[in-house]
Formats: sequence, structure tokens, C-alpha cells
Amino acid sequence: MRITVQKFGGTSVANLDCMCKVLDKNREILSTGCKLVVVLSAMAGETNRLLTLAGQWSDRPDPWELDALVATGEQVSVTLYAMLLKDQGIRARSVLGHQAEILTDCSAGRARILGINSSRMLELLNSHDVLVVAGFQGCDIRQRITTLGRGGSDTSAVALAAALNAELCEIYTDVDGVYTTDPHVCPQARKISRITYDEMLEMASMGAKVLQIRSVQFAKKYQVPVHVRSTFSNEPGTIVTKEEKGMEEALVSSIAYDKDQARVTLMDVYDEPGVAATIFSPISDADIVVDMIVQNPSREARTDMTFTVPRGDLEPTLKILNRIKTEIGAPAVVHDAQVSKVSIIGVGMRNHSGVAAMAFTALKHEGINILMISTSEIKISILLDEKYTELAVRTLHEAFGLDKPEPTPKSDQS
Amino acid sequence: MRITVQKFGGTSVANLDCMCKVLDKNREILSTGCKLVVVLSAMAGETNRLLTLAGQWSDRPDPWELDALVATGEQVSVTLYAMLLKDQGIRARSVLGHQAEILTDCSAGRARILGINSSRMLELLNSHDVLVVAGFQGCDIRQRITTLGRGGSDTSAVALAAALNAELCEIYTDVDGVYTTDPHVCPQARKISRITYDEMLEMASMGAKVLQIRSVQFAKKYQVPVHVRSTFSNEPGTIVTKEEKGMEEALVSSIAYDKDQARVTLMDVYDEPGVAATIFSPISDADIVVDMIVQNPSREARTDMTFTVPRGDLEPTLKILNRIKTEIGAPAVVHDAQVSKVSIIGVGMRNHSGVAAMAFTALKHEGINILMISTSEIKISILLDEKYTELAVRTLHEAFGLDKPEPTPKSDQS
Repeated sequence: MRITVQKFGGTSVANLDCMCKVLDKNREILSTGCKLVVVLSAMAGETNRLLTLAGQWSDRPDPWELDALVATGEQVSVTLYAMLLKDQGIRARSVLGHQAEILTDCSAGRARILGINSSRMLELLNSHDVLVVAGFQGCDIRQRITTLGRGGSDTSAVALAAALNAELCEIYTDVDGVYTTDPHVCPQARKISRITYDEMLEMASMGAKVLQIRSVQFAKKYQVPVHVRSTFSNEPGTIVTKEEKGMEEALVSSIAYDKDQARVTLMDVYDEPGVAATIFSPISDADIVVDMIVQNPSREARTDMTFTVPRGDLEPTLKILNRIKTEIGAPAVVHDAQVSKVSIIGVGMRNHSGVAAMAFTALKHEGINILMISTSEIKISILLDEKYTELAVRTLHEAFGLDKPEPTPKSDQS
Repeated sequence: MRITVQKFGGTSVANLDCMCKVLDKNREILSTGCKLVVVLSAMAGETNRLLTLAGQWSDRPDPWELDALVATGEQVSVTLYAMLLKDQGIRARSVLGHQAEILTDCSAGRARILGINSSRMLELLNSHDVLVVAGFQGCDIRQRITTLGRGGSDTSAVALAAALNAELCEIYTDVDGVYTTDPHVCPQARKISRITYDEMLEMASMGAKVLQIRSVQFAKKYQVPVHVRSTFSNEPGTIVTKEEKGMEEALVSSIAYDKDQARVTLMDVYDEPGVAATIFSPISDADIVVDMIVQNPSREARTDMTFTVPRGDLEPTLKILNRIKTEIGAPAVVHDAQVSKVSIIGVGMRNHSGVAAMAFTALKHEGINILMISTSEIKISILLDEKYTELAVRTLHEAFGLDKPEPTPKSDQS
């Protein structure tokens, strides 16, 4: 049985007009003789309406009840859409999370999918051409309704595609794909036709606007090809897939940035075993996520330790550091909330030296000072003064030729 | 384990203020050390909102999808209320129809309860003091969500009370009990403190305004005592229960009426075997419910056949009769849409002759002509000209002493 999974977000199911566009996308697949699993989110605004309602009833709503409450959002959209399909003479039915037996762990509000009863879904696909599955929801082993957290419908779709061994998982959204960088910052940004799972993951928040990070991890784990595209156009979008031969041709695939950064430097801390743990354990305990960390080489048994945290976490971080600064021997804590991070991403850089040098040279030409550098196999992140963010993005975008037309990938036979 | 079931209708859960009254009713029971099962309807207006939504999406909404759609109404009210209980420090959780394993047949929109997994509910009651159960919904053997039809939450509550062997089933509503007759017609009407299942059933539409007919049938079958009372007062309401000794003291318990009646007479039909079947089979096939039927004694192998149907079904009934009237030999079909039915109800009349005579005499004194009579063990129904309805109700109410204070029932020891 050939199966395609199509997922549509809240703006795609906002009203009857939008739903007719969804219907067109469904028909295209059905006309190829494929069975279809359509994953829907709640109608735009509905989840927030339900959360507001909960807030009126309770100062701290019970997370389990909240899950069962917000799950009604998807229940409404899938039942309405299944009605519409049946009106069109299409053999369709709605399937809720517990009916699809999407088993999750017992974490209300941010549950992780443990498994899907694929034989149940396949049985339903025998007698139906379209199953309209409620995204974002599952149930735990005690039959309680769980939700997968914001953007969880993407994960539902990818997980269903993996479980059903679907040919393709199409994620329809209100943007038409993944771009080389933010088009608002750099008008020369262009749509990327293919990108690897790892590159998507490294794009972090910029990529997450298009596809939920966890769904990408899921897709990578089960090697599900994901096609991100727009409900409101017929153009192909971006295919997120495993690394293929042709893909390495592009040295750099995208430039990402993140303004939600603050830098903290501890001057002259003792350079001795355990000092890093003393600094970062209490920060981690406070649920603060540290991003970049740089430690300078030691001088006279002292070192400088610099790291970044989300800007909103700067104050609590400084409080923690003031509490421990005598313990670690740091006479001064310096901080800067006006910094941002620009990242150069590309699987191609793994096999090429010189990407970092090219980047630094390009930034130097524009007089942009580099505050911090951190590198991974396929990413170079540079911290700089926030005011240079847009200039740095455009400079790097041009330096790596991302404003040029996408190179045609060599075929696998080459 | 002592268990009480309390059911609250849509007006009782309309908003946070109302819900605080529900909370008071819950606390009363909890303070006695009883475990509590609270059955809730959707918030007032919510079911209609969802039905309207479905109507916008589909001209003839699929009944299965409709069930799964409207079931969200109760899902919202039970989750919100469970949050409120937990905020109060009460060990509570919501339980949806499929979680309570309320198994129904496969009739979407008007499903009948086949069974409840009471061991699952009892297990949940071990770790919780209050289970907030979504009324009106269940699921069928294929795990599809079903609903029980309008007023189905009453049936949910009674079924849960039966399955859990509850001490009491309290149905809270916006009226304070069952009355001897409609107070709008007869200001002397008074609240009845105890009434039998059979009397409630015979009150038909008048009783159904207070308690859904099917829930009374269910309560009778499983001998569940039901206390119908108001959310907005502390007065006791009406207890619907099996017949007890003291109850027979009251000759007549109530006077009901029904203006939705039309009378049809077939003059001079053949008085031969099978003629009734010839007349009523096509009417029944058209889903028309015939209420009273009277056949006069035969004269010269001919007879008159008179019956009543709901007023809205008069036209289709006449069409059917015109089609068959030559077959049954009826030269004329006479009809009257301006009739109504007044009923005298009471288990006491079973052991007393003369109730009918008393009724006819009282009506005669007011010059009210009787068009038709039909009797059962505990009911006498009289068809009369519609304009006399209110006068007849008041006359009979007084004739049987229903305007007097309720007699104190003798104790069971007497």
C-alpha cells in the first residue's frame, strides 16, 4: 500500500476557504492512487483561546487537564474536515490521537512519542482513502490524553510517516520552504531545494520557524524525507533529507542568526578541575540553557570564562554568579546584553578548510568585530555586537555565494 | 466504597460563577466521606455552537464526525472543572467517555449504553475523591466516539450510578423538581417529593422537561433512586424511585398535558381482520408515532377508527390515508388539528375504581366535552378541544386534591 502523509498547520485550516486549498492538495495525491494520512493542527487561534479559557478557571491549570482541554482544538478541525471530505464522496474519517494509538510517555504538555499502532492505522486505510489524524496529541499508557508541545503536529506527521513507511511526508505551512537566510534581513535570500537533517537542526530557531526541531530529529532518526512547502502555492518547497552525494557541493547552505543572546564573562577564575562544574551546575539547575562557552588559555593559574545565555535569563544568571563568585575566585563578572549570534551552516564545510577564514575576512572588511567564536562539524557561530547583525548576515550570505542561483546537484550516478 | 453520582446540566456549568455552586454541592457530599462521580454536560450553548459550525462545513454532516465534534463540548467542561477542583486541593481528574469505557452500540447521535467498565472507574476512585465524567458520550466497540442524543447526560449519570452501585444519583438542573402539573398553567401546582419511575414515564413530555425519558427507563431497570433538584437552591427536589408502600396513598400524583396532538377519524372502514394493519403499517413506515387509538363497536360490518398523531405529522398522515382509503373502504377521512391531550397519572389509581368517573364528572361541570379516552394501569388520557386545555388541567388538579399539601407518606412499618 502506497501512503503519503500530509500535514497542515493552523493557518491552513483556519476556515472553509483555506480547507478547500487543503482539499486540492489531497486530491493531487489521491489521483496518483496513493492512500493519504492528513494530519491537522487546531484552527489558527483555537489553542490560544483554550489556554486563555484555562487561565480564567485556574491560576495554575493542571497539566493533564490542560492537555485534554487543548486536544479538543485538533478534534474540532479533524472532524469538520472529515465531514467536508465525505461530502465530496471521499472515503474518509477522523482519527484522534488515542484512536491512532499514538502512545507517548507520561509528560503532560510536552510528551514524546513512544510508538504508533501501525497495524491499526493500516487496517483503517484498507477501508478508507483518507485518514484525518489529529496532530499534536497522543495518549499515555494509562489512556490519558497527552500533547506533544508547540509545533507537535509536525512531529505527529513525521512519526506517522515513519510508522506507516510512507513514501513522503509533506509539511504544508504558510511559508514556501527553507531559505538561505531570513529574507527580511537579506532580500537576496533564496529558497533551498534540498537540505540535510543536520543542517536543519543547526539552523535552530531560524529553521524551527519552518519545521519543529523535534520533528527534524524524528525524521533524521527514521530517515523520513520531509517536504516543507506552502499551502497557498503550487511551487515545490524544501526537501529535508539525509545527506546525498550532490549535496556536498554547496560549501555553505545557510546563514542563521539569533538576537536572543547575552554574554557573561567571569574574569580571572581559578583554573583548576571542577571550576566549570561549580559555575554551570547551578545555572543548569535553574533551567537556564547555556549556548556558547569559551575558556581562554590559563595565565598564572587563572582564566577567563565566557558564555552566552538567552537574554531573558541574564538577570537570574548574574544572581547565581554573584552567589558563587567568591567560591570560584572571580573578582569580576562582566556582561553584555546587546550581542547576537550569526551562524554559517553547511555539511560541505566538513570537507573544506578555510570556511572560517573566509567568514572572518568578510566580516573584517565590514569592520565588524568578533566577540566569540564556536564551531561544530557543520556550523561556525560568531558572536558580535547586536547592531551589526543584519550587516553580518548580508555580508556572509554574499561571501558564500548564497545570493547566486542554487547549483544543480550532480546526479547520484556521477 | 460509598459513591454518589451528581449530574449537572448545561446551565449549571455555564460559567465560573455557576461552577462555584456546583463545587458547594460536591463539598456537601465529600464531607460525608463519600466518593463522588460528577457528570457534566457541555456549557450552555456550546453544543448548539458546534452544531452550527458543522452546518457551515457540511450540508449533511457525517453522523460519526458530528459525534466526535460535539463530544468536545463536554470535554471542555470536564477538564476546566477538574482544574478548578484540583486548585481547591481536591484529588480530582476528568474522565472522558472512552476513558470511562462507556461502551455503546454503533448508533451515531443516539447511541444506547451497553455497559460500563466499572472496575476501571473503581480503580480510579481509589486514587481520586472526585471523577469528573463527560456526560452524553461513550464509545463503540470500534473505539469510535458516540453520543447518546439530547439529554443523554442524564442517562450517563444514571448508568454510572447503576454500574458503580452508587448510594444516590442526584440530577441537578435549573428547575427544583417535578410538579403536580405545569405551574404556568396552574399556579396551585406543587412540587412532588417522591414519584415512581412509572409515573415519571407516563408524564412523558412534561416529565422529560425535568429528566430525560431514557434515563428514567434506565433508572427503573437498575432500580437507581434519582433525586432531581436545583443547582441554585438548597431545597430538596423530587426523588424518582421504585414504588414504596406509602406512595400508593396518593390516588393521583400529577396532571400532564400535551398540545402537540391532531385527531384523525376514518369513517365506516371495513370491520375485518387486517384492516388495522393496513392502516397503521404505512403510517409507522413513515416514522409517524400514533398515540391514542380508538375503534368503535362495529355496525353492519363497518366501524369508525380514530387515532391521534403529532400535529406536524397530520399532513403526511392524511396523504397516506388518501392513498389507501379505497382499499379499506373508508368513504371519508375527518381530521381535527385543534385538539390536546390531558392525562391523569398516579400509581394509586390501580387499586381504586372511580378515578375516571371523578375526572369525567369534574370536566362535565365545566362544560368540557370529551373527544376520546384512553387508559393504562396508572394513566387516564383524555382528548379534548385545545381551547379547554388549561381549564381542564386546573379542574382536574383541584378535583384530585393536588393543590392540597402533600400527604405525609406512611412509614414502611405501618
